[in-house]
Amino acid sequence: MREYAFGVDLGGTTVKLGLFKTEGILIDKWEIPTRTENNGEQLLPDIALSITNKLSEFNIDKNCVEGIGIGVPGAVLNGKYVKRCVNLNGWGDFDVSEKLSAFVGIPVEVVNDANAAALGEMWQGGAKGYSNVIFVTLGTGVGGGIIVDGKVLTGQHGAAGEIGHIKIKRDADFSCGCGKKGCLEGYASATGIVRYAYELLKDSQEPTKLREFDKLEAKDVFNLAKEGDQVARKVTELMYDDLGTALAGISCVTDPEIIVLGGGVSKAGTILLEGVRHAFEKYAFPASEQTQFSLASLGNDAGIYGGARLIMNI
Amino acid sequence: MREYAFGVDLGGTTVKLGLFKTEGILIDKWEIPTRTENNGEQLLPDIALSITNKLSEFNIDKNCVEGIGIGVPGAVLNGKYVKRCVNLNGWGDFDVSEKLSAFVGIPVEVVNDANAAALGEMWQGGAKGYSNVIFVTLGTGVGGGIIVDGKVLTGQHGAAGEIGHIKIKRDADFSCGCGKKGCLEGYASATGIVRYAYELLKDSQEPTKLREFDKLEAKDVFNLAKEGDQVARKVTELMYDDLGTALAGISCVTDPEIIVLGGGVSKAGTILLEGVRHAFEKYAFPASEQTQFSLASLGNDAGIYGGARLIMNI
Repeated sequence: MREYAFGVDLGGTTVKLGLFKTEGILIDKWEIPTRTENNGEQLLPDIALSITNKLSEFNIDKNCVEGIGIGVPGAVLNGKYVKRCVNLNGWGDFDVSEKLSAFVGIPVEVVNDANAAALGEMWQGGAKGYSNVIFVTLGTGVGGGIIVDGKVLTGQHGAAGEIGHIKIKRDADFSCGCGKKGCLEGYASATGIVRYAYELLKDSQEPTKLREFDKLEAKDVFNLAKEGDQVARKVTELMYDDLGTALAGISCVTDPEIIVLGGGVSKAGTILLEGVRHAFEKYAFPASEQTQFSLASLGNDAGIYGGARLIMNI
Repeated sequence: MREYAFGVDLGGTTVKLGLFKTEGILIDKWEIPTRTENNGEQLLPDIALSITNKLSEFNIDKNCVEGIGIGVPGAVLNGKYVKRCVNLNGWGDFDVSEKLSAFVGIPVEVVNDANAAALGEMWQGGAKGYSNVIFVTLGTGVGGGIIVDGKVLTGQHGAAGEIGHIKIKRDADFSCGCGKKGCLEGYASATGIVRYAYELLKDSQEPTKLREFDKLEAKDVFNLAKEGDQVARKVTELMYDDLGTALAGISCVTDPEIIVLGGGVSKAGTILLEGVRHAFEKYAFPASEQTQFSLASLGNDAGIYGGARLIMNI
């Protein structure tokens, strides 16, 4: 194993980059803007230049670099071929690994961004020391990454780990962004929690501080639940039950050691972790009931950690 | 790779054994009784003797044998340690690999029996030529095996592939054998299909030949559905919808190339395959909608094929 590795997290507005020692230390992290003009033709040259400059700055020879791992917001096939990139539609379908590697002269591997975050949390975050992991990001949507024996599952169509699209309600009356109905994402995301809250407020006359907000956010619901607001608690219980059901189902597939909750919603902390764990135990196959749970700990750096971990191929 | 391998399928009443050429040809198959007396202490010696005799019969030297793969009805850890064996309770928890290997002088690996069937179908059956597979057995219960890159997932507690225990109804009013409620097994098994049929007969006055049976079986329901009996069709549609939902959920986890339906219920054939595929497409993440479907083709030999495939470790 060479001494250094780069992790890159390609977002819609900024590209996050990290220079790591392969033993697991983040030496430097920085950002560059995501230039989307002309179908994103400057994106890979920008990343290549930024990495080359960083090597000069730290006086590191290319031969001391194991490689670059890059997480992208889209489906990735065979660790290099990007099928379609969310927010970068014009980017088309092409071999990101080959192109970026040609620009920078260092091996490159590519992974879906949620999968990168899963690898990062396994390497140095909430699942450190484990190699069989379910990672779920709870944000505006619900994403995830499934790790088996230290490798992230990618699947035949780049759709492994799309756990936000597990169907949990067949009688749903609204559609998910994917076009189908009843996806987990519609109930366990920040958006889903707020939807549940408004539904309960409409159907209930119970007193609750939830009514005092002009524009509710998921974090308000969790804050009030922590204060003991009974309606807020009911909202969170609905979400725990949905997410616990889905995670118990995933456990019947891969039976992991640990389930890690990340994304903006996971800032709710222990109340969320314990609520989801409790629902999980209710629905889990008995042998898997005692599966570990933890909170993600790398925040927005999970992607760059995961990129670096990806290229290490250990 | 050596020239020969044995596959063993340890059932509650008989042990099935197969001698294979590792290129994929079944040379001979036979059965011995499962002697369960004295906590099954004769089971492994019986298997060892039977294999030794077969080697003599075919004049094969032990050094030409790659090994023995054995499927057992229980949770298996690390490819050798059996945690608890269904129908062989007294057997206890022990290292089946080490013990059988010591008796017979050939390397042994152990796998759960449903997982063995999955490997067999991947090697020479309904998923031949594929390496990312969901295998589901629809019998008295519902079992399965999840294969990623040619390896069957076993999980942290030996519970990977327990897809019969994915929860598909949180409002279920009866319990599964596992102690929980709402498991797929309660709806998509032969037992579940019959339960659905009696429920519909109770609630409906529609004319149907289903009423003519003293003791309905799942195959009667499929036979009548094929003849166009509308109530029987409704029963099968309920089962397709449940199974399709669960399989679409599993696809959001591992995103396989192919889904194989096996077990006694799969003898219903094309009507089942097309019904489940149609429901799957309704609930699948769009990128995975076109996942292949096939029927298992090895029948009761799937387990011995899978045992032999397991020991080949390719």
